[in-house]
Amino acid sequence: MTQPAVREQARVAAEVAAAAAAEGYEAQEASAILAQARAAVDPELRRAVEALPGSMRRVARYHFGWEHADGTPATGNAGKAVRPALVLAAVRALGGRPERAVRAAAAVELTHNFTLLHDDVMDRDATRRHRPTAWTVFGDADAILAGDAIQAQAQRLLAEEGHPAASAAAARLAACVVELCEGQAVDVALEGRDPTDVSLPETLAMAEAKTGALLGCACAVGGLYAGADDEEVEALDAFGRCAGLAFQLIDDVIGIWGDPVRTGKPACADLAVRKKSLPVVAALASGGAAADELAALYGPPGPKKEGVAELEAIALAVERAGGRDWAQAQAADHMSRAVDRLSQAVPVPEAADGLLSLAEFVTRRGY
Amino acid sequence: MTQPAVREQARVAAEVAAAAAAEGYEAQEASAILAQARAAVDPELRRAVEALPGSMRRVARYHFGWEHADGTPATGNAGKAVRPALVLAAVRALGGRPERAVRAAAAVELTHNFTLLHDDVMDRDATRRHRPTAWTVFGDADAILAGDAIQAQAQRLLAEEGHPAASAAAARLAACVVELCEGQAVDVALEGRDPTDVSLPETLAMAEAKTGALLGCACAVGGLYAGADDEEVEALDAFGRCAGLAFQLIDDVIGIWGDPVRTGKPACADLAVRKKSLPVVAALASGGAAADELAALYGPPGPKKEGVAELEAIALAVERAGGRDWAQAQAADHMSRAVDRLSQAVPVPEAADGLLSLAEFVTRRGY
Repeated sequence: MTQPAVREQARVAAEVAAAAAAEGYEAQEASAILAQARAAVDPELRRAVEALPGSMRRVARYHFGWEHADGTPATGNAGKAVRPALVLAAVRALGGRPERAVRAAAAVELTHNFTLLHDDVMDRDATRRHRPTAWTVFGDADAILAGDAIQAQAQRLLAEEGHPAASAAAARLAACVVELCEGQAVDVALEGRDPTDVSLPETLAMAEAKTGALLGCACAVGGLYAGADDEEVEALDAFGRCAGLAFQLIDDVIGIWGDPVRTGKPACADLAVRKKSLPVVAALASGGAAADELAALYGPPGPKKEGVAELEAIALAVERAGGRDWAQAQAADHMSRAVDRLSQAVPVPEAADGLLSLAEFVTRRGY
Repeated sequence: MTQPAVREQARVAAEVAAAAAAEGYEAQEASAILAQARAAVDPELRRAVEALPGSMRRVARYHFGWEHADGTPATGNAGKAVRPALVLAAVRALGGRPERAVRAAAAVELTHNFTLLHDDVMDRDATRRHRPTAWTVFGDADAILAGDAIQAQAQRLLAEEGHPAASAAAARLAACVVELCEGQAVDVALEGRDPTDVSLPETLAMAEAKTGALLGCACAVGGLYAGADDEEVEALDAFGRCAGLAFQLIDDVIGIWGDPVRTGKPACADLAVRKKSLPVVAALASGGAAADELAALYGPPGPKKEGVAELEAIALAVERAGGRDWAQAQAADHMSRAVDRLSQAVPVPEAADGLLSLAEFVTRRGY
């Protein structure tokens, strides 16, 4: 794409976002869809967790935000439930019965949470949903085992389910787990490499595997439960993947330029830990003097001790090298591809409303 | 059980083992069954591993013994394939078609190997099947991810399978994973506790969850694939569980009194690392002067620097406190229970031959 085309797309995306924020109705609709999905799926999630024995039940209850570390009840923050909402919205979009897909939606959410538990162990991340991560509270072994057991419970939900689409959904979810693991493996491998030695295509592929794959799988599972044909299921998967990549691009923009008041994280959080996020990799790969300047500022991998001024200088260098514009244009491009693919699976625009609201919601997060 | 009854049972068990060893025919038959199972399942295992992307494929190939750490081919030692052999033997015992249960047998073996990969990470075990463990070669993250992906591949095999029993088998295998995780969680928790503070019932429950559960599940899955009714499936599960506990008891005896030439491990290996194995816990729980003497020698948890003479003194103390006799009598008792439960599922003795040979093989290992 030419530079003017990129800018034009970024401008359009910004306008779309601004218009939506001004009206606020999609966000409102998405919030209602998410709240409904959380309410529908919560009993299944709790049943799956309560069926776990001893220490794993405690870790899972804590991770889902239902208990404090000391075992006392918490009015939890179990996450936004984007993935189960996508499952149920996809069922609805294809004319199926969402109430029959609640267990499948719960299985997708359990799978997501198993990967979070394990990723936090591997990445040594200390915070998740504004609380200490499970491994910091219960140790590595209990966090790994809780993750393993939650993956098993996800598959058990589908295997014990009578729905004719359950086996196909289980196979798709298991294949997705392999892709999620691959995304995490590449992410861990990139961690240790010099930032100038990381290519944009491999970073995009990693983001698709880590984030796009499960959003795509959620939509595809919804399609399967609604009796969609192969082509519709693949189009739904592609919709979720593209929306997932758009989300990741926006999330990476927020990780650098997000307002600390809104994000709850310090300014330039991703730069402070030298995360190889998409805007940074794109900026470094852009060539020319601005990229060289950024490479010099970025230095070798690993966290640094820097003040806000130094981090803001890096953020400016990323912006000068085109990283911010590129990411916003790419996000808009992926969202438009998502919309295209969705129209293949769901030709009637009104039927696609729920899925579109959710996709717009996740890509507008923090704005 | 009274002391004379325990001794009598131990004597009978020893006689049975000696007679079998003299004739050697069950061992021969078991070896043939195992070799056949390995040959049948190997292509499915390789397909599941080859379908993994990048780093996880490398870790899995290494773990299964098909590749060296540098990626060159190895004429591997992928384990004895006891679990897939149990699946196929159970199908045969119930009059089913073993060739239709090969994928299910592979799914059980994949599940076993996923737990080995994760257990080694948690236990920081450095050796598995006479080679460095995967995490020591590839790091924790890649070993955890390979395990996660292998669990997913096991479920995928069953979900993509057309067999009418596949969903029931998948549900049973997933429930078994939760039990395996619980066994490992209790094992890790017991590690850190004072040996005199560990009860025999909880150690037996841990051994059943860690070892008995998957042997039971393998037999039950075989039953499901042969179209067995609920009662037969539960009897097969109980057979595998009892045989698994008998195996663990004998394995623990070998871990203390096994011949280093045969085991490939140093004498008293389990005592050197203060493993809370069943004979030790039974000896400590026996009460009286011999138990007190052992407790004093055993000391707090953790590895010690001791010579062979000191370790042999501890082994003698375990024996004096009745730990060895108890374990052998318990093993014989569990084997006899296993045989009872098997006869409920498979009333015709000849049909049960294969399963019995396998059970006798695993409980005679190293003798």
